[in-house]
Amino acid sequence: MKQADQIIHARWVIPCEDLSILENHALIIEKGKIIDLLPSPEAEKTYSAPLIEHFSTHALTPGFVNTHTHIGMNLFRGLADDLALMDWLNHHIWPAERAWVSHELVYDASLLAAAEMIRGGTTCFNEMFFFLQATAQAADQAGLRGKIGITVIDFPTAWAKSMDEYLDKGLGFYEEYKNHERLGCTMAPHAIYTVAENTLTKIQRFAEKYRLRINMHVQETADEVRQSLAQTQKRPLRRLQDIGMVTPDLIAVHMTQIDEEDLEIVRQGKPQVVHCPESNMKLASGSSPVQTFRSLGLNVALGTDGAASNNDLDMIGEMRAAAFLAKLSTQNPQTLSAGETLQMATLNGAKALGLEQITGSLRVGKAADFIAIQLDEIETQPLYHPVSQIVYATSRQQVSDVWVAGKRLMKNRELLTLDERELLRKTKEWQQKIKVNQA
Amino acid sequence: MKQADQIIHARWVIPCEDLSILENHALIIEKGKIIDLLPSPEAEKTYSAPLIEHFSTHALTPGFVNTHTHIGMNLFRGLADDLALMDWLNHHIWPAERAWVSHELVYDASLLAAAEMIRGGTTCFNEMFFFLQATAQAADQAGLRGKIGITVIDFPTAWAKSMDEYLDKGLGFYEEYKNHERLGCTMAPHAIYTVAENTLTKIQRFAEKYRLRINMHVQETADEVRQSLAQTQKRPLRRLQDIGMVTPDLIAVHMTQIDEEDLEIVRQGKPQVVHCPESNMKLASGSSPVQTFRSLGLNVALGTDGAASNNDLDMIGEMRAAAFLAKLSTQNPQTLSAGETLQMATLNGAKALGLEQITGSLRVGKAADFIAIQLDEIETQPLYHPVSQIVYATSRQQVSDVWVAGKRLMKNRELLTLDERELLRKTKEWQQKIKVNQA
Repeated sequence: MKQADQIIHARWVIPCEDLSILENHALIIEKGKIIDLLPSPEAEKTYSAPLIEHFSTHALTPGFVNTHTHIGMNLFRGLADDLALMDWLNHHIWPAERAWVSHELVYDASLLAAAEMIRGGTTCFNEMFFFLQATAQAADQAGLRGKIGITVIDFPTAWAKSMDEYLDKGLGFYEEYKNHERLGCTMAPHAIYTVAENTLTKIQRFAEKYRLRINMHVQETADEVRQSLAQTQKRPLRRLQDIGMVTPDLIAVHMTQIDEEDLEIVRQGKPQVVHCPESNMKLASGSSPVQTFRSLGLNVALGTDGAASNNDLDMIGEMRAAAFLAKLSTQNPQTLSAGETLQMATLNGAKALGLEQITGSLRVGKAADFIAIQLDEIETQPLYHPVSQIVYATSRQQVSDVWVAGKRLMKNRELLTLDERELLRKTKEWQQKIKVNQA
Repeated sequence: MKQADQIIHARWVIPCEDLSILENHALIIEKGKIIDLLPSPEAEKTYSAPLIEHFSTHALTPGFVNTHTHIGMNLFRGLADDLALMDWLNHHIWPAERAWVSHELVYDASLLAAAEMIRGGTTCFNEMFFFLQATAQAADQAGLRGKIGITVIDFPTAWAKSMDEYLDKGLGFYEEYKNHERLGCTMAPHAIYTVAENTLTKIQRFAEKYRLRINMHVQETADEVRQSLAQTQKRPLRRLQDIGMVTPDLIAVHMTQIDEEDLEIVRQGKPQVVHCPESNMKLASGSSPVQTFRSLGLNVALGTDGAASNNDLDMIGEMRAAAFLAKLSTQNPQTLSAGETLQMATLNGAKALGLEQITGSLRVGKAADFIAIQLDEIETQPLYHPVSQIVYATSRQQVSDVWVAGKRLMKNRELLTLDERELLRKTKEWQQKIKVNQA
């Protein structure tokens, strides 16, 4: 018998390397990595381990990779909804940010978001906000994997007063976390309308020097494109191409407003695309032509956007919205099948972040980042096709267990790295303060 | 002190008569009806009751009215997905129906669906399928309110062989249930492409004689409209208008394919519209112009459609999809606010079914059909606006308690009228049979 740390048997294992579904298989884990994936009867003959578990009514899948978040804003969830974007920003979000954003707020918001992500099966996230250390400390404590953006925006915030300060603080963060086993960083210029082109050029040099991807909102709204055309006679993607930024190292988020010229630019440059269907619908930004991007060979990942706008970090809900919207917008119910959507929420996210050798699928040699989904519920029975059931009928509350790098973060709905009661208490404390300020 | 049966205090009470939200109020219930709704301190001074409860972290809302269901098909959930409609029908659903639809299957499917509906906060449904008594028996046992369609379709099924038999059996059902306190019926011609016009005329006479509403799929897909134009040079709504069927007694379900002529017809006739956004997206049927209907003064209600196509009976998810799709399709994030959407899922459903004097809002004199939603969870904190939180961040698993006509159907997530384990056991038994037949 070979020795391992953990043997996890399950009714279904869905590796997400391709569209296959394995029945009655076991994951074998050693030192935080998957060292084997084989039928349960064979696993019983081959391996022994101090910890052996059976998930007899569950599916194991890779943990979700939420490829676009602003978790530092989680305490602003539902502050203001059903508003036009600029009203929402000018009269609600920016005043709240000016009044409250600090290391303390971002740390508590990130912890709350980490709890929400773990409870919903997310094991890896891709953040863009301020007070990077606050988010990193929270994510580290929670046990999550993630990329934290060195955010740059052309106006002063509580985090930094100038472009130089944004970059200096970013460099400090990079140095502090460059050898962390689960956390890393990206360069994160906010958007073309908030970051000048000469700043973008500096950011790009920084990214090249430190081998970081660039995470950026791109062509999220028609206004963004109109403004760019008015100011420069060029659409944002064209401007990014002109400064050499449209490459596979660009993580282009939203991409709802796309014309033929844009398609030619991305066909050549092959950026990573992050689709945020719920945010795009709720803010009336538009519908990203996901199928067209895929047909051009681009990698398309999935993100929830921030809870202040969406208003959740629910990757199962986001998968459903992505599949539904793709079918509606292509007028074809076969577009974006359940299996393709699950891959979009897992492996494609890892690819977008350059982490596909480490996470995003259940493959021997990768980190043991995975979740168990309880399918034996009234809402998910009968069960003819587990992947279809996960995408079209399951709720995030059916995620029962979560592991990152082999470490259990949630066990039968109980958080093991975070104190749920304390988080709720602190959240209410913040709410009282923020509400008073809003009135 | 006045005497009552039950006093239910809650942190928030959302009556859905208008967009108001009451804080720290109590519902007073006597003989299954709401006899008062007042601030908790006043309630404590005014009423005594043998049962007094406090929902200090919950919102009470009217139970959801799921205005379009095929619950008799619930055992076909997820049988086949991501397929074109005719492939799905011809090769999966109709063969399964031919092989399995019976009183027994419809009864068990309806019980399973009833459990799912109660667990998700639905207290009233509007059904279209066969074996009406089977569904009625299940709904009666569950304690739900509902309308069950006397379905008519121009081909033989296991339920009836001819139009006369559909109508005869329908009349028998009508007579059996006409005095039932919670259940009633509608006439339910399936669609214009499956029911001939002379049959529709007979159905209309039947509906007028027995004062029943007519529940029908109308202009669900572009194919339906094309086929109608090819056969009669008229669109379906025009044909229904010509036979006098477009009135407030018509419950027109789906309505995704709408042109100017259609708008003029509905502006004049004011039918009830049932919007099924998730089904319409998943099957790529189209996007119903809900805001236009509303601006013309039509009542628009919300339905999930059947679990075989959608694949759930989740009215909270359906609300979110409705709000998102309305914002996207009007390119305006202010369209269909959270409050308007909650009303669509409650009072508008009751109006569509002609039950607005009985249910759909928390008003003195109406039946005590209501639910408690637990908002003190990681996913729904902080909480600045309870209605926004319910529509944009809450999951159906946060529905903790459900009452119909003052009777408790679920208490802190435990079903009181149905046996969950037995339902799961029976569902698996059916699944084995149905799967064998599919292979």
